[in-house]
Amino acid sequence: MIISTANPHVKHIRSLAADRKERRRERLVVLEGVRLVADALAHDAQLTLALYAPEQLETTTEGVSLLEQLEQGTFAQPATPQVIAAAAETVHPQGVVALARWPERVAERPGIILVVEATQDPGNLGTLLRSAEAVGVAQVLCTVGTVDVYSPKVVRAAMGAHFRLSVEQDLAWEEVAGRLASVDHVYAADAGATMPYHAADWRQPCALIVGNEAHGLSGQARDTATRMIGIPMQGSAESLNVAVAGSVILFEALRQRTRGRT
Amino acid sequence: MIISTANPHVKHIRSLAADRKERRRERLVVLEGVRLVADALAHDAQLTLALYAPEQLETTTEGVSLLEQLEQGTFAQPATPQVIAAAAETVHPQGVVALARWPERVAERPGIILVVEATQDPGNLGTLLRSAEAVGVAQVLCTVGTVDVYSPKVVRAAMGAHFRLSVEQDLAWEEVAGRLASVDHVYAADAGATMPYHAADWRQPCALIVGNEAHGLSGQARDTATRMIGIPMQGSAESLNVAVAGSVILFEALRQRTRGRT
Repeated sequence: MIISTANPHVKHIRSLAADRKERRRERLVVLEGVRLVADALAHDAQLTLALYAPEQLETTTEGVSLLEQLEQGTFAQPATPQVIAAAAETVHPQGVVALARWPERVAERPGIILVVEATQDPGNLGTLLRSAEAVGVAQVLCTVGTVDVYSPKVVRAAMGAHFRLSVEQDLAWEEVAGRLASVDHVYAADAGATMPYHAADWRQPCALIVGNEAHGLSGQARDTATRMIGIPMQGSAESLNVAVAGSVILFEALRQRTRGRT
Repeated sequence: MIISTANPHVKHIRSLAADRKERRRERLVVLEGVRLVADALAHDAQLTLALYAPEQLETTTEGVSLLEQLEQGTFAQPATPQVIAAAAETVHPQGVVALARWPERVAERPGIILVVEATQDPGNLGTLLRSAEAVGVAQVLCTVGTVDVYSPKVVRAAMGAHFRLSVEQDLAWEEVAGRLASVDHVYAADAGATMPYHAADWRQPCALIVGNEAHGLSGQARDTATRMIGIPMQGSAESLNVAVAGSVILFEALRQRTRGRT
């Protein structure tokens, strides 16, 4: 039982949570909370370390179930709630903090490709990943300048989508353009576009590009897109949150794919 | 020119930002940043106080335009950037912090009614308000237990929607049910519902109920609803962020209203 908050594992977890370079060097992601850790295990994530406080996990049904799994794992070590709190970034880590290897790139499958360009807010990127996974997006490509996919805030907002999606990051536009070469339609979300998102045909192989919160799409994104699409609005709002805009479009794509275009 | 961070206005703004009871007593809302303050003025909000740092506003086109308006207002007082920073909650207040009276309830107009039940996260509520305004929702009714509509985080996430929407809060379910009596369809978003949201008819007078992030809909919400609707998903995600789910449904409603149902 780890009882000292000065334990090297605590320091290791905290420095991985804080430092993108270290995450990249070790290719590890920090998972906090019962739901994220259980979800990672359910999707065959490779955990390298888990610190858990049995007395905290025992207070919920999900916690008890996770405890049984952790007690069988050689990577898991019991610790006091104080140690968990010291290792965690969240206020309520629910008795478990873990490290998992970055998922391997999932084999390509047919479906919509989501391209995320320079989205800066971790909550927005995490929400986009969660929605992408929910609509069955085939892969997510993040360009250089996008917030780190494995930053703890992104991971928490994505609610485990990382382990169920193929996500790549730090891609140059030349690389992205190459990946989209065989795609029929590359739609880019642009507040000024006249074509409504629901007039686009999402039933063919296609991609959606969403841009930066403040600056919108780059010239390279516009060059790569085959059509700009907008979300018609009734109020006097100028724009939508990028995660909301991306989600609205992705769910329309899923609606067309399951019900047919109209 | 206010140069002391101990100025009573600074203390007043901070206590309004921190204290829901004081906001309710004075019926005031704190606005930070050029965009929110300019937007409030553009929608005839009644500002009672604005502290602004001319040297900061002069650095952007929007700031210069706002500066010209503020210099004509008797409610506005120049201050140092240090004073603005002391009064503001955000890291980058952009040279302006203001107080505005809560908007009067806008006259009822036809359209969709959004009922928000016990949403706890200020970012989620603000995002819902922003989407509601964007699709032309007629009114928003928040039940008792929902995070304060005028909390600074909600106001920032809503991006000025407060001044363009009719929003009421602290409503009991009996009151909400009364308001919905003349509405043909009251749809409630429920992860377990079998009727897809896009199979619902949003062209008639209707309402959408969205529930709490963790606990979903209450029994009273279910009793008030005429149909439960869900958002079909392809991945293994169990649920969506409530702001995303509400936005996806509201934009489908707008799509039907402008293109016809399919």
